[in-house]
Order: sequence, then C-alpha cells, then structure tokens
Amino acid sequence: MCVYDNLKTLGIELPSPPPKGGTYAFVKQTGNLVYTSGHGPEVNGVALRKGKLGKDLTIEEGQEEAKIVILNTLATMHATFGDLNRIKNVVKILGFIASDVNFTSQPIVMNAASKLLIDIFGNEKGEHARSAIGTSVLPNDIPVEIEVIFEIE
Amino acid sequence: MCVYDNLKTLGIELPSPPPKGGTYAFVKQTGNLVYTSGHGPEVNGVALRKGKLGKDLTIEEGQEEAKIVILNTLATMHATFGDLNRIKNVVKILGFIASDVNFTSQPIVMNAASKLLIDIFGNEKGEHARSAIGTSVLPNDIPVEIEVIFEIE
Amino acid sequence: MCVYDNLKTLGIELPSPPPKGGTYAFVKQTGNLVYTSGHGPEVNGVALRKGKLGKDLTIEEGQEEAKIVILNTLATMHATFGDLNRIKNVVKILGFIASDVNFTSQPIVMNAASKLLIDIFGNEKGEHARSAIGTSVLPNDIPVEIEVIFEIE
Repeated sequence: MCVYDNLKTLGIELPSPPPKGGTYAFVKQTGNLVYTSGHGPEVNGVALRKGKLGKDLTIEEGQEEAKIVILNTLATMHATFGDLNRIKNVVKILGFIASDVNFTSQPIVMNAASKLLIDIFGNEKGEHARSAIGTSVLPNDIPVEIEVIFEIE
Repeated sequence: MCVYDNLKTLGIELPSPPPKGGTYAFVKQTGNLVYTSGHGPEVNGVALRKGKLGKDLTIEEGQEEAKIVILNTLATMHATFGDLNRIKNVVKILGFIASDVNFTSQPIVMNAASKLLIDIFGNEKGEHARSAIGTSVLPNDIPVEIEVIFEIE
Repeated sequence: MCVYDNLKTLGIELPSPPPKGGTYAFVKQTGNLVYTSGHGPEVNGVALRKGKLGKDLTIEEGQEEAKIVILNTLATMHATFGDLNRIKNVVKILGFIASDVNFTSQPIVMNAASKLLIDIFGNEKGEHARSAIGTSVLPNDIPVEIEVIFEIE
C-alpha cells in the first residue's frame, strides 16, 4: 500500500504546506512520535469559510473544512519527512469545532476527517483515537482546528 | 494490588463498553502508551443528564457524570486489553466541562474523576497530570468529556 | 547552553512552584516524556487578572499572562526534576485562551509563550508544536491555561 497511490485513487492532490508564520514549529518529533500543531482549513493562507457550525456553516461545509485541515496537516508532514509512507500509525486526533451554543454534532463533522485518514492510510494504520470538542471561537475565526499525533518509522 | 479487588471494595461494577459508532477507534496504542478517545457519560448509549454546569447541572451532578466517564473509559480499556492490571500508569487526563459562561469550578468537577482513578489504581499508578477546561458545548450536549493517556505493560 | 544562564540574561527569576491543591499531580513522567498539568497564571496562588481576552484583557495583558503560565510550569519542572537543563526538548504546548466570542487572536497571545520558551531553551530544544484554542471560560476565571509535553534525559 502506497499513500500516494491512495491519494491518486481518491482524486486528491496535496495542497502546499501552510506557510510558517509564528514562533513555533508545525511539527515536532520525539522518539517515533510526531506531534503536529493545530492546523486550520486555510487554502493558500486564506480561510474559505469563517465562523461557527450551527450558525455560519452547515454540517456538510464543516465536513469539507475538516477534510481540508487533514490535507493541510498531511502537506506539512510530506514537506517535513519527504515521504508519507513513513507514517506507521495515525495515533490520535484532537479536533475543535467552533460551534453555536446549540450545535452538538461535532462528531459528525469530525467523522469526515477520520474517514479521510482511513481512506488514505488504510484501516490498520489510519484508525485512530479521537476527541471532538465544541468551542466558542477559534483563531482567525476558522471553524475547525485539528492536532494529530503520528507514529513514524 | 488488584484493580478488580479495588473496584469490588468500592462497590463499583464496570459498565458495558460504549458501542462503537463512528469512524474511529476508542483506543489506540503506540509503544506502551495507550490513548483513549474522548469518552462521554452515556449509560447504555443514553445520556442521563444533558447541558451545562452552572446552568443545567449542579456541581455534584457534574461530579457524578465525570465518574461515569471514567468508568466508561475503563470499560473500553477492559474490553480492549482484557485485564486492567496491565495498566502501569494513568499518565494524563484532559477533561472538558460544558459550562455556563460564569461557571468556573471545572477543577472541582474533575476532582471526582481524579479521585476515582486514584481509588482504583492506587496513589502511585493512579496519580496523573491533568487539565480541566471549560467549553461552551460538547457533542450530543453531554456535560463532560475526558480523554486519557495510559501506560501499559 | 545553560537554562539558568538564559533566565538570568533575560532578567527572569523563577516563581515559587504552584502549591499542590487537587487530587492530581502537576507532572507525570512516562519513559522520557513528561506531561505537565494545565497551569494557570496565578502568582503566589492569586490570579492577577481574570476574565476573557477581547473583553477584560488586552492582547498585551494576555501575553503577560501566557508568559506567567510558562514560568509557573517551569517552576513546577524545576521543583520536580531539580535541573531544567535535563529538558531535552519542549515537544508540544496546548494553550486555551478564555475569549470573548469575537476575539480571534489566540495565536498572538500564545506567541508570547512560544517565544519565551525559545528564548529560554534555544531554537532547537525550545521550538515546539502548538495548538492555540479559544474557549468560553476557564477554571477560576483565569484567562490562559497551558499544558506542556517535555522530553527529558
């Protein structure tokens, strides 16, 4: 199984990795664990959609945003490690969904991120532990932010 | 020390593990670390209490919910690994408390979860690092969601 | 490079470590990873500023609070391990910023924490993965809470 073949089969082209802006790293490795910083859904540095689920975005739009977050994360991983096939496991994802106070379907939004990871990495490597959390507001008014722990070889 | 003896002494019967619903795993292991997904306080798939601390639930009710979350997490661990005595350490818990904007006693709610872990696993194995975070809303309107990192042997 | 020399150069004196209050540990180690509990910006147990960014605190005040959180965390690490030079890497920080619903500059607040870590530990050890999350309310109405993963030798 080759991750890039899976991406091609899925019709997915990896985006450019997000430009480094802040005073931190997008990725840090310790042993064979790699922690990614919370990524957002900006495309070429621009947020396509802003605001909150249950108010400004539909569930379907939130799912699109969650998928873009995952692809941005993988773009960072590809730029850092050169080969996504080095990823041995998607260990855990922690996803925050900016939500209207009455919106309680965060897991349905995050399912799109989880399913994409499984489609790309396969059941065994791709299946991960996960928390989906609603919150009142996210940086730059993005609707979804996700951090990931990978195991690499 | 046997975890199941401690549970018996405490008068606790482990619930059934939560049914797998989504596109993710309730547990993922890497090396000797085990990450659990964010668990909620549903009992047999049904939330006993919904809403926010400081508005819909008293602190005591929130503490009850936090304890149920821990028991659900341990039910998942028991179902996955077969023997809770394999847990060498409770490393860290991250707890989110759905809160009215004026409710600031998240640590008191989480103390019930922390104390239960120590009662079950003993001081040395059971004591853990912890963050308690307030948030505006959680999946399915549950009041408490906790994810745990265990070390197993 | 000596961490304590860097602190002296920066004119920083480590505060007293926060007093243990709850039913959990401020630090838990597994292998060579150290997880710190979510620390707040209390000074000698008293919060200097309470409330939310975008409403009760300016960005500059939030940045001050974020720096105090990091120093409290390092005070805990110093008290636990005796020598901050044993820290081989700042792996990851997860920061929660209590925010008015219209405040979206959480990363600018967290940049103060990130920059301080790099100033103290140097670029290679100090640079870390990071997530900055807005939330509606934090324990005791503090404006900033941060948890850290360190690698030690």
